[in-house]
Amino acid sequence: MSERLHNFSAGPAALPLPVLQKVQEELLCYPGAGASVMEISHRSKSFESIIQNAEADLRALLGIGDSHAVVFMQGGATLQFSALAVNFLRGSGKPGDFILTGSWGEKALKEAKKEGEVRTAFTNKDENFKRLPKAGELNLDPNAAFVHFTSNETIQGVEFMQEPEVGDAPLFCDASSDFLSHPVPVDKYGLLYAGAQKNIGPAGVAVAIIRKDLLDRVPEGLPSMLDYKLAVENESLYNTPACFTIYVVGLVLKWLKDDIGGLDKMYAQNQKKAAILYDLIDSSNGFYRGHAEKDCRSLMNVTWTLETPELEAELLAGAKERNLDGLKGHRSVGGLRASIYNACPVESVQALADYMTEFHKQKG
Amino acid sequence: MSERLHNFSAGPAALPLPVLQKVQEELLCYPGAGASVMEISHRSKSFESIIQNAEADLRALLGIGDSHAVVFMQGGATLQFSALAVNFLRGSGKPGDFILTGSWGEKALKEAKKEGEVRTAFTNKDENFKRLPKAGELNLDPNAAFVHFTSNETIQGVEFMQEPEVGDAPLFCDASSDFLSHPVPVDKYGLLYAGAQKNIGPAGVAVAIIRKDLLDRVPEGLPSMLDYKLAVENESLYNTPACFTIYVVGLVLKWLKDDIGGLDKMYAQNQKKAAILYDLIDSSNGFYRGHAEKDCRSLMNVTWTLETPELEAELLAGAKERNLDGLKGHRSVGGLRASIYNACPVESVQALADYMTEFHKQKG
Repeated sequence: MSERLHNFSAGPAALPLPVLQKVQEELLCYPGAGASVMEISHRSKSFESIIQNAEADLRALLGIGDSHAVVFMQGGATLQFSALAVNFLRGSGKPGDFILTGSWGEKALKEAKKEGEVRTAFTNKDENFKRLPKAGELNLDPNAAFVHFTSNETIQGVEFMQEPEVGDAPLFCDASSDFLSHPVPVDKYGLLYAGAQKNIGPAGVAVAIIRKDLLDRVPEGLPSMLDYKLAVENESLYNTPACFTIYVVGLVLKWLKDDIGGLDKMYAQNQKKAAILYDLIDSSNGFYRGHAEKDCRSLMNVTWTLETPELEAELLAGAKERNLDGLKGHRSVGGLRASIYNACPVESVQALADYMTEFHKQKG
Repeated sequence: MSERLHNFSAGPAALPLPVLQKVQEELLCYPGAGASVMEISHRSKSFESIIQNAEADLRALLGIGDSHAVVFMQGGATLQFSALAVNFLRGSGKPGDFILTGSWGEKALKEAKKEGEVRTAFTNKDENFKRLPKAGELNLDPNAAFVHFTSNETIQGVEFMQEPEVGDAPLFCDASSDFLSHPVPVDKYGLLYAGAQKNIGPAGVAVAIIRKDLLDRVPEGLPSMLDYKLAVENESLYNTPACFTIYVVGLVLKWLKDDIGGLDKMYAQNQKKAAILYDLIDSSNGFYRGHAEKDCRSLMNVTWTLETPELEAELLAGAKERNLDGLKGHRSVGGLRASIYNACPVESVQALADYMTEFHKQKG
């Protein structure tokens, strides 16, 4: 099989084809370097320019000002869970507040608990995380070191389109699965981080955006790879970073800025893609059943079930025949999930919708 | 510039050209996956087969038996420094013994010190790390949790070709810069780890080979990304690993096994390459001056100086004109350094030697 499929993988996920083509073109010899990006020193002029351009494009896309630092780290969101806890809970005498709206928020809390006091400021696990907190439902500690939330829950398919109101404590956010899918007011955040492998690149790097004044709170003696202060002071080059992965992220950021035209345009595309599927679900008279409540639906991960597991299996099998790949839902929610991140083209979403319409006609 | 140079970079370093060509060929669509390796789930059949084959080839190359586990982790050797300390010092009531023969050993000790008691079992920093310990020079604690050494010091260019004799304590080794450059008796090691970016792949992944019985000593509650037990139990897939980087590592391992023909043959090639440069240095009547003592010389990083910094600068400038890249020595040793890891072809070493001979004739 040498044909590219319609890729609905939840992550690592589809990348923009022009980015892959550029990577392929430059694979043996990066212009000006005399070697592949995989083969050059992280202290070389070529790589310095790669990582500096990536940061500049990210700053331009999100409108990040001088108040916030940007670093590229290894270890995915899971390392960030530990990092935010050792940097901001250890020795602080304060608890971390966690808003749980799905599986990833739970993981963040579990990891942070190893390093300090944590509180559950909200959870609706008993409803299988179908919705976000409503006004007044957050149980916050005014003394909290931070309030953490997960902007998009990949498994459940619920997404914050606006930041929760949390008062004065710094707002921390795992944005792994909707990072750069729409504009975000970075100034509201103390820490905004994301593993790359959904919206901005291959697995193996995470981006962390940190309000600089918080770095004064970082204690001494942290493991170097978990230390935000060290990462910021060394501009992500304390040790050898994931150079090639950062290079690909840089190309994706450039694609977002120049080819797509920025986050407003990306957001519009993402709304259009999601609407194709949600409208189809809503007009199916219950044949397709969305998991998330309507006002909490994710633009990135569309989750739905059918009446029986057999019907779901049949839908999946037919999808495979039509080169629609990666649609099986996570076991904790069941059914199907279409992950339609930034790089998933409208054409792929339309192909899926056409098939779902056809399937409904046949089986409905 | 679209021409590939002779690449003597200390790391990230040269990769085998056939590996880069294969990566380029499969970049848009990995056979059977319908997508790039960068775009597929780490739980997919394609990636499972990639990581399992990589482990199998590594086991075949080093003759790793069932006594040892193999994991792929993020964060480079620096994360391993923290990991080995939190896994084996924290709560153990025992010190870690460190044999220091260069800059990387010092970094390992400094990082471990944050997590537990450390001892310097040997250092010759006062000699600028020109040599390895001789028999009887190690000051070991019989109660040590482990004895750590650095098999090759990238900056100073000294290399252990045999393991130090350390008694009964588990032997831990940072083999980042000579991993798979020659056969190694893995059974002698409690922990053998290496960042990929010198000999086995791009930056962004480290391999750790761990004696399984030691995993019983790992305490509860470690940060997940530093926890060897968790990594082993989840076969490197607790969270999303650096999939694409592991794929490239897998191709390098396959190249080593099938194209080169295994570690004995790789070792012979590496000896031949190093001999070309060391013979030239030794027969230059002091025009070129090797940094390391003769019986401790690295086969991977050849370090030397000339009589004056001006002459060194002239040698470097001429090298650049001849497409000989990455030869500037590290500031702590000065002079020049040729990093001639596995993937550096004999032809590149010969081109450097020819130029050095010519330079000596002109200036000597």
